[in-house]
Amino acid sequence: MKHLHLPSILLADLQQVDRVILERLQSNAAVITVAGQHLLNSGGKRLRAALVLLAARLGTYQLERVLHAATTVEVIHAASLVHDDLVDEAERRRGVATVHSHWDHGVALMVGDYLFAVAAGEMALAPDPRIITYFSHAVMTICEGELSPVTHVTPIETALEQYYYKIGCKTAALFAAATKAGMTSGGGSQEQIDILGRFGYDLGLAFQIVDDILDFTGDEALLGKPAGSDLRQGTITLPLIYAVQAGGGEKLAAVIDSHDKAELDWAVAEVQRLGIDQSHADARKLVDRALRYLEIFPDSPTLQTIIDIAEFVLEREQ
Amino acid sequence: MKHLHLPSILLADLQQVDRVILERLQSNAAVITVAGQHLLNSGGKRLRAALVLLAARLGTYQLERVLHAATTVEVIHAASLVHDDLVDEAERRRGVATVHSHWDHGVALMVGDYLFAVAAGEMALAPDPRIITYFSHAVMTICEGELSPVTHVTPIETALEQYYYKIGCKTAALFAAATKAGMTSGGGSQEQIDILGRFGYDLGLAFQIVDDILDFTGDEALLGKPAGSDLRQGTITLPLIYAVQAGGGEKLAAVIDSHDKAELDWAVAEVQRLGIDQSHADARKLVDRALRYLEIFPDSPTLQTIIDIAEFVLEREQ
Repeated sequence: MKHLHLPSILLADLQQVDRVILERLQSNAAVITVAGQHLLNSGGKRLRAALVLLAARLGTYQLERVLHAATTVEVIHAASLVHDDLVDEAERRRGVATVHSHWDHGVALMVGDYLFAVAAGEMALAPDPRIITYFSHAVMTICEGELSPVTHVTPIETALEQYYYKIGCKTAALFAAATKAGMTSGGGSQEQIDILGRFGYDLGLAFQIVDDILDFTGDEALLGKPAGSDLRQGTITLPLIYAVQAGGGEKLAAVIDSHDKAELDWAVAEVQRLGIDQSHADARKLVDRALRYLEIFPDSPTLQTIIDIAEFVLEREQ
Repeated sequence: MKHLHLPSILLADLQQVDRVILERLQSNAAVITVAGQHLLNSGGKRLRAALVLLAARLGTYQLERVLHAATTVEVIHAASLVHDDLVDEAERRRGVATVHSHWDHGVALMVGDYLFAVAAGEMALAPDPRIITYFSHAVMTICEGELSPVTHVTPIETALEQYYYKIGCKTAALFAAATKAGMTSGGGSQEQIDILGRFGYDLGLAFQIVDDILDFTGDEALLGKPAGSDLRQGTITLPLIYAVQAGGGEKLAAVIDSHDKAELDWAVAEVQRLGIDQSHADARKLVDRALRYLEIFPDSPTLQTIIDIAEFVLEREQ
């Protein structure tokens, strides 16, 4: 599956999420509204909100009980993207100008802060105080991940440990919070909530690995940046780690500090040749483990949609 | 009164606030803990937390009911300071290196985000959901203020309108949230909460005006920066606005765009000569109006401490 077809009932509820987000972006500072809309429209798939809604559907579903948590996760995601782009000085994301490059650093900083405050107000409307804990801890974890770079390509044990810690903080923690918040809104038991959290965490890890693979293999037009841009900026991700181990060796490992275009082009090609298969195998294993967590739930159309999303995370091309 | 003497019972409770803040600063990313401690120790007076505690004491006081709100306001204040310094590229605050100049921009950005997330989790522990609304709206308002510069020194009506809007967002909104959250924790009526919010708002306006006066008149050693640094950086504040009106005229107004040191030194001296008295009169008027709001409360040692704080805000020298 390359394209994800979501049930129309889910799409209708996701439109309600978008409606609430748009309402929350109304600000006395026009630039916050405009930059916030720009950010929220920058190609996001509302995947995290969909996971919240679907997790709730595994329990007792009432849109008004789960809408705030679904809104919260997308607003947190948008806030963390704008600040992540600011730390990375990224010019574009998915081919669209980032907030700080379109406006300026101060605007990007304040739009992110504003969105975090919107999220704080929104999660407080959720029907269970545990939801606030899930989301506020996820944001703290995202910050910790942002400050924990992968510093080593070798030895591979260190590299893998650093990499998995980082993507656990950066991406998986918020996926886990999303599925837990959804299941909590649906009135699930604490055991169901915890298990769905583990599903979300593993799915988030796989999602980030696929992101890091697509940085090397994706269509440059779809990604809006040249292939291998992580490596070109000195960021160590899983495909590079595995490519070094699979034969790239010290010469490839050393390129991470290079600024020579020819050397970097060679390194990107080496990673494409040597590092993708093993990375994809890791993502596959994580999705399989994630799916096994779902076995406690009886089969249902909702469960099937969640499984479809997990497969889509693995096979998507952008 | 130049020094503020707070009752020992209040000081003991403020120590509990500091204890909770220290606990919340424990992070897996050591730099967040260290930079957070640096920030929280940078000469803060915990004035906002004191207002929360005292407002609660006007009602039915239970430390454990109000502790979370008092912690929240100081954590929000610290988070907004570190991001404000980042926007302003300020090297020092109160003579101490700012987080982004001591560490780097990414650390300052993430420490601020982490603290906002701590605040979101903390306010959710408060005993009344209105408290979350007060604080999350205050943070949104701070962001709006940060993006609303004072662009004109003349005409004075425009300048005053922009200036009062900006300091209302930047400072007074959080003071108002503090007093409202305290009174809410103390079980006050909605009327008491609203009136105490107005007291907090006016006190916050006066606090910021005095800050802007001290930027011109304060002891450079205590401030940790040269006199008139706002004006030297092109920031229009109340003393400049009044100095232009009181005789400085177009020549003084034009200096805001100057980079010439001799011109700026002359302008700072002109503002010191012409702009301070009227600014101080505005702050005095605001404190008087703030104090009148307190008349609905019967006299008590707590009320007297609040009045002392209001007078201290006006007469402080740093």
